Amino acid sequence: MKRPARRRIEVGLLGATGMVGQQFAALLDRHPWFRLTWLAASERSTGKRYGEIPWRLASAMPDAASKMTIEEPEPRKAPNVVFSALDASVAGEIEAEFAAAGHIVVSNARNHRMDPVVPLLIPEVNPEHLGILRAQKKAKGWRGALVTNPNCSTIFLAMALAALRELEPRRVVVTTMQALSGAGHPGVASLDALGNVIPFISGEEEKIENETRKILGRICGETFAPAAIAISAQATRVPVLNGHTEAVSVGFSERVSTEEIREAFRKFSGKPQELGLPSAPSAAIVYNDAADRPQPRLDAERFGGMAVQTGRLRPCPVMGHKFVLLGHNTIRGAAGAAILNAELMRAEGVIQ
Amino acid sequence: MKRPARRRIEVGLLGATGMVGQQFAALLDRHPWFRLTWLAASERSTGKRYGEIPWRLASAMPDAASKMTIEEPEPRKAPNVVFSALDASVAGEIEAEFAAAGHIVVSNARNHRMDPVVPLLIPEVNPEHLGILRAQKKAKGWRGALVTNPNCSTIFLAMALAALRELEPRRVVVTTMQALSGAGHPGVASLDALGNVIPFISGEEEKIENETRKILGRICGETFAPAAIAISAQATRVPVLNGHTEAVSVGFSERVSTEEIREAFRKFSGKPQELGLPSAPSAAIVYNDAADRPQPRLDAERFGGMAVQTGRLRPCPVMGHKFVLLGHNTIRGAAGAAILNAELMRAEGVIQ
Amino acid sequence: MKRPARRRIEVGLLGATGMVGQQFAALLDRHPWFRLTWLAASERSTGKRYGEIPWRLASAMPDAASKMTIEEPEPRKAPNVVFSALDASVAGEIEAEFAAAGHIVVSNARNHRMDPVVPLLIPEVNPEHLGILRAQKKAKGWRGALVTNPNCSTIFLAMALAALRELEPRRVVVTTMQALSGAGHPGVASLDALGNVIPFISGEEEKIENETRKILGRICGETFAPAAIAISAQATRVPVLNGHTEAVSVGFSERVSTEEIREAFRKFSGKPQELGLPSAPSAAIVYNDAADRPQPRLDAERFGGMAVQTGRLRPCPVMGHKFVLLGHNTIRGAAGAAILNAELMRAEGVIQ
Amino acid sequence: MKRPARRRIEVGLLGATGMVGQQFAALLDRHPWFRLTWLAASERSTGKRYGEIPWRLASAMPDAASKMTIEEPEPRKAPNVVFSALDASVAGEIEAEFAAAGHIVVSNARNHRMDPVVPLLIPEVNPEHLGILRAQKKAKGWRGALVTNPNCSTIFLAMALAALRELEPRRVVVTTMQALSGAGHPGVASLDALGNVIPFISGEEEKIENETRKILGRICGETFAPAAIAISAQATRVPVLNGHTEAVSVGFSERVSTEEIREAFRKFSGKPQELGLPSAPSAAIVYNDAADRPQPRLDAERFGGMAVQTGRLRPCPVMGHKFVLLGHNTIRGAAGAAILNAELMRAEGVIQ
Repeated sequence: MKRPARRRIEVGLLGATGMVGQQFAALLDRHPWFRLTWLAASERSTGKRYGEIPWRLASAMPDAASKMTIEEPEPRKAPNVVFSALDASVAGEIEAEFAAAGHIVVSNARNHRMDPVVPLLIPEVNPEHLGILRAQKKAKGWRGALVTNPNCSTIFLAMALAALRELEPRRVVVTTMQALSGAGHPGVASLDALGNVIPFISGEEEKIENETRKILGRICGETFAPAAIAISAQATRVPVLNGHTEAVSVGFSERVSTEEIREAFRKFSGKPQELGLPSAPSAAIVYNDAADRPQPRLDAERFGGMAVQTGRLRPCPVMGHKFVLLGHNTIRGAAGAAILNAELMRAEGVIQ
Repeated sequence: MKRPARRRIEVGLLGATGMVGQQFAALLDRHPWFRLTWLAASERSTGKRYGEIPWRLASAMPDAASKMTIEEPEPRKAPNVVFSALDASVAGEIEAEFAAAGHIVVSNARNHRMDPVVPLLIPEVNPEHLGILRAQKKAKGWRGALVTNPNCSTIFLAMALAALRELEPRRVVVTTMQALSGAGHPGVASLDALGNVIPFISGEEEKIENETRKILGRICGETFAPAAIAISAQATRVPVLNGHTEAVSVGFSERVSTEEIREAFRKFSGKPQELGLPSAPSAAIVYNDAADRPQPRLDAERFGGMAVQTGRLRPCPVMGHKFVLLGHNTIRGAAGAAILNAELMRAEGVIQ
Repeated sequence: MKRPARRRIEVGLLGATGMVGQQFAALLDRHPWFRLTWLAASERSTGKRYGEIPWRLASAMPDAASKMTIEEPEPRKAPNVVFSALDASVAGEIEAEFAAAGHIVVSNARNHRMDPVVPLLIPEVNPEHLGILRAQKKAKGWRGALVTNPNCSTIFLAMALAALRELEPRRVVVTTMQALSGAGHPGVASLDALGNVIPFISGEEEKIENETRKILGRICGETFAPAAIAISAQATRVPVLNGHTEAVSVGFSERVSTEEIREAFRKFSGKPQELGLPSAPSAAIVYNDAADRPQPRLDAERFGGMAVQTGRLRPCPVMGHKFVLLGHNTIRGAAGAAILNAELMRAEGVIQ
Repeated sequence: MKRPARRRIEVGLLGATGMVGQQFAALLDRHPWFRLTWLAASERSTGKRYGEIPWRLASAMPDAASKMTIEEPEPRKAPNVVFSALDASVAGEIEAEFAAAGHIVVSNARNHRMDPVVPLLIPEVNPEHLGILRAQKKAKGWRGALVTNPNCSTIFLAMALAALRELEPRRVVVTTMQALSGAGHPGVASLDALGNVIPFISGEEEKIENETRKILGRICGETFAPAAIAISAQATRVPVLNGHTEAVSVGFSERVSTEEIREAFRKFSGKPQELGLPSAPSAAIVYNDAADRPQPRLDAERFGGMAVQTGRLRPCPVMGHKFVLLGHNTIRGAAGAAILNAELMRAEGVIQ
């Protein structure tokens, strides 16, 4: 069901000039529910037309955005709903300021993700976490609200684990092979990236290990009770443009068959599919039968970059089962994640 | 102790034209103990001078080899000791034929590795496995002998686990990120490799899981008893030229500290170091303190490509401990492995 | 003006399984004038469903095509209009057979390009070359007809030179940096491509030098008189997925200003734009003002891959002027070129 | 003839921490004539041990250097001879200060290259340009001296043209495909480099066009008279680690045969070869007969990275002849060039 959108809601974008900010601008172009009317970025860019910023996506810069002037991140001038692609060095303070001033902030930044009254939202996984917003208002005294989406690698893993929820996954060992676009621009130096694997991404493993437990947990009083699942991540950077690949081993509380897991992946669905949210992929998780898929170069852009793709499911002699997953890090893993969050929030009446 | 080599032993090379064959020729050039005097390859190349073959290493083709004529893989003409870099499609039969005819075959091919009377040798790890050769002679009726080295990814993992042997590792989950040179030439198509991760390498995971148990096992009567260790591997191909990276999680039979593991890596040493074998790295395992090392592009060529490099050792919330390792796949993982095997065999009197 | 297409014309595709064949299938999906109803390929693939073929584009395989069965390249079963993405090793004979049997063959193969009665067609450049088809019928005795498009690098250069035609370019020195997809799959081995430049592509330089003269020439009696322009090409392969870059120096018969050249690029247009052909880019040549553009990764996919992008125009101290150009090699340089040719042929009544 | 070096001369290194600085340190390790005893870099690094600096070469950091402390670029503490790998933003002033203070500065920086009394030296090409140092002393009032080596791409082209000097090359059109290491670290962002060609390198084309004329010119009174040769360069950046490839077309004053050119390449030699300078390649220019060579990945490291490799010589229908050349940009194109300059200066008595 596509919700009839009589008028599109005006939205703003904080941190419009970075890689994720550009992805937001691209995805919001001609969005059926939202109209991007306000762009903000750091001092270096304010006053410039967006079209003057070096555009780093292979698609063309949206015409409408290219003509807009980049403003200061100042709440008074911004529309009620703002997306945040701010850098973590400034996101914490600015986002809080916007929420305090009454804005609904839909953020991709990491700063508030683990805050006990901030939802770490994946619409297919934990839509009920929006229920914490009452406690948030109370605890923070904000007139607005702040909702975050998880780290890119975390989203893909959490969606896969959510699909398996009824099978009771208890232990996860995951190695990520992450794309360069995840580090922004200029990000990784080409001399470090070309023909290389960098076996370290600062803070990434902790995010995967901690955020996933919060996402899969439940509201308990005025905060979240994390899920009882142990996760161990090794994060690496590989010379890929877009698309994080993850090699996952999972142990369950009881014996599970590969067929049960494959079926759980295939039938996994949630509110976005149910409500027909505009950015929702028709299947949240796609299972590939081909022995050598998914692959980032061939598969990351498929399904609008919004599905998590899985493959190579088979028994793991140590843990239980193992498989490979792939997600588009700047779409489902960042800008698209936040936009889907906002769509859910509108469908649920949080954004009006 | 460098063994005084009065005269160098003549050696031959089966499969001289492939990537691994070329690496053999490069490493055997000016070898203090061995003199490469005979090259063989498939029909397509026989009769050509080696210098006419397209040379695919960044180092220059050795002068001496370049002038040699490529012969048929025919035992009668070959020296007593032959290295085999044959393709698995033909190695099984040809190597057996040479061993039957009295040659000592030091092979990198996979065909005979899991044979119950063939040593799967890593000199630092299981030099005593040469003891099976008596049983081999008896079982096969060969006048010569056949010794193999493990699969590249297996060697690096087995060396790391051997270093930890006294700490009793029991469960291993490993994800490999393997270089393109491991697939030979032409190997992986550039359209498949560039900017991509291919999450599948045919047969690789089974080799890592099975070979490691044989290597870490012991001779038991006239065959091998595999080690009691469960291993689960996910093998991927990444756009790296040389150097396989592995993200490893290990569980031990009892509680172990990171410091014990780091020490075990640092003090690990074996017969090659003790005997001063010409190709032995001074340290079999090198531990890197830098947070983002080892990296294939920067580290694979170090220590002559013969050491296994480790790093990022830290607790694993699921398994016990985790770390990253790196090895040069065509040197320590193939040609260099076989040459070190031959050096051990000479030092032990198997090759005379 | 978009021509009202009452019914779509059925078309077939020879060589459907290769890289260019797949690009044809992707571009013909939902084409307003043509409906792909017949796929043929070599023996190895006949009888398979198209969906079983490994699909190598980042976009999804078109649904309709995926259900079709691959047939033998046999004229009797094919629709009247067939595109050819055949490999040069077989294209010569098969295409002639189809043309003889009455088909209109729109080919991307190189075999007949330099035939004195075969048009080497770029709709913006030499639409009048279709006039040779009368002579072709006579000379060949074919009931059908054969039209070819040039080599990829040639198309981009010929379009740029056609834009400058009135300024009378006389001498051209060009270095191409060509993408890997131009070599098909498996094509270039990854070990040869990664981090490398291969300064040789067999036959490429001759094609650029000779085809361009034919394209820019004119019909003269029953054949073509080549243009009086001297061209020297150096062709290299670089590790780029899609998009050939060319560094061009041009000398003119008289003194010309950079402004005249830039204007000529900007105003260049032809029959496809005039007739509103479905695959025509709105501008045949796009000039980039940014100092470091066009770049294949960022720009090749723009404008549907059908425009030639230029930039960095400046005086050349040796030749006159120099600039950089970029074209998408499998779209404007191959499948898209042939489809645009067929669109022109339909608009002109050659295809009915 | 290797000059007997009774004692090694102490040398310093300005700008020791960058990519070129590291290459200097690597090449000076165990140099038979020079001993690196003093390292300087910008404020950010002074006081640190060199071993603490992130080392970016695939070879190991030299032991001796790793233990040295990085000092301020202060003439009083430096040995008499200093190499400069300083960044252009600071090199101009600091190098002049050192020369004024009596040091012999052998610089790779671009700042003083086009100064009318500073030699732009390639030992095989213009060793007699050292004769300008008298005029330099007079004009500058320096107690020491300053000698520079050309830009990397320029060196390779100038060496090739010097080999052809007697054939009187008059017009050159060159397209360069330059490696990432030429931009230093962090240099080019990986998102810009991977799978891409960047058709612009700031200032590079001007350097190639202007420096070459100075190098091939001659001393005329108290300055240089540039050579009468017109050069047009297009410089591009490609995803290659080391090794600049150049596609060159040359026009001569009179008709010349390819055989004459090939012979001129083959027999080209100069003072470094004659004097047996330690870093001199045995052949200054190597001609490759293979149709697809030289290639940066396979060939750049050969001959110690100090030879210019050529290939693909053939007639150019526009200019006269064309060929491909390759040089190692951080060795022969930078650090190795300066060291060879210093070796020549010592052999000629400028350094004592």
